[in-house]
Amino acid sequence: MDVPNRRVDVPGGTGRAVRVRAGERIRVIDVEGGQVGDVFAFASDGEHHSAAHTRTHTRRLFPAVGEQFLTDRRRPILTLVSDTSPGEHDMLVAACDPARYALLGAPEHRSCAANLREALAAVGHPHSGPTPQPINVFMRIPVGADGSLTWLPALSAAGDAITFRAELDAVVVVSSCPMDIVGINRGAPSPLVVEVFA
Amino acid sequence: MDVPNRRVDVPGGTGRAVRVRAGERIRVIDVEGGQVGDVFAFASDGEHHSAAHTRTHTRRLFPAVGEQFLTDRRRPILTLVSDTSPGEHDMLVAACDPARYALLGAPEHRSCAANLREALAAVGHPHSGPTPQPINVFMRIPVGADGSLTWLPALSAAGDAITFRAELDAVVVVSSCPMDIVGINRGAPSPLVVEVFA
Repeated sequence: MDVPNRRVDVPGGTGRAVRVRAGERIRVIDVEGGQVGDVFAFASDGEHHSAAHTRTHTRRLFPAVGEQFLTDRRRPILTLVSDTSPGEHDMLVAACDPARYALLGAPEHRSCAANLREALAAVGHPHSGPTPQPINVFMRIPVGADGSLTWLPALSAAGDAITFRAELDAVVVVSSCPMDIVGINRGAPSPLVVEVFA
Repeated sequence: MDVPNRRVDVPGGTGRAVRVRAGERIRVIDVEGGQVGDVFAFASDGEHHSAAHTRTHTRRLFPAVGEQFLTDRRRPILTLVSDTSPGEHDMLVAACDPARYALLGAPEHRSCAANLREALAAVGHPHSGPTPQPINVFMRIPVGADGSLTWLPALSAAGDAITFRAELDAVVVVSSCPMDIVGINRGAPSPLVVEVFA
């Protein structure tokens, strides 16, 4: 069994950033189960993971194990290495943000977009541009044959994990999604853990 | 029959921007048929149409007639008013860009991303941030039940048109997609026309 060289606790509803080197692996663990994580990956100079460029590369809505996530400059930044969850993840839906919660009647609510800014600032990698489309791990958004999207509770069990390999030196942000109004998480926001392996 | 108050020709493979006021309608016409158009919409202060925020709002991969496109601040910027085409449009795939063509072995090729920058600069509305996910009108990217995406030639016939209403004062950019390596357009890039109605 691999031993991580860093471990970061992400309390429920908050975000944390970790700096990784190309070749390191990043494991995101759903500690209690049923918790969506918004994952973002930034290289230098504002280059970052881009869902739209990734889809063009993989020709899929979400990469399969062994496939790569690309940046807005079409460079691989992460590879999906392994996944012990039921395998449902989303890359279509925007991070929750203050505007989302204002529309839901909760303007002061925590959000993944704010968690992202805070986490990046905490590691000295501030970001002022638009919030990129996240990799929403464990998030269950099935697409109907008519193009309809449905928001369903995450099916991940306690201890389920998804693992990425960094293909560039990167800052990876993981936000435990604080959404407790639309039922995508199971109950109150719960913790995630990020482990980094050589 | 409505009479447009402005008409902009978009030569095949190039892009043009048009400034519109809230309430005006923008009609994008596929002159010869089989031509994809990349459509972008910007308000002030960098606010722009966001596919990810739009999908969260409409709960669909692409808005139906009568539904709205949202900005990254979750404000409606366009409404889909009418559509005389077969109704297949894409909002999943990134604009073609120099990196895309470099990977395809044609690094000097024209691109929708470069067309966007040129068109915005030409109307004094420069944009330095990442290229937003476009509204790819007439682009046919069916999504399989397994999440697979397929690139198919546009089915739009000569004269087919899709019409939007601006919900904010906006700069709308339309690029006749210059892609002639992957078969999404019918033959060589062909012209589009943008008409604006009060």
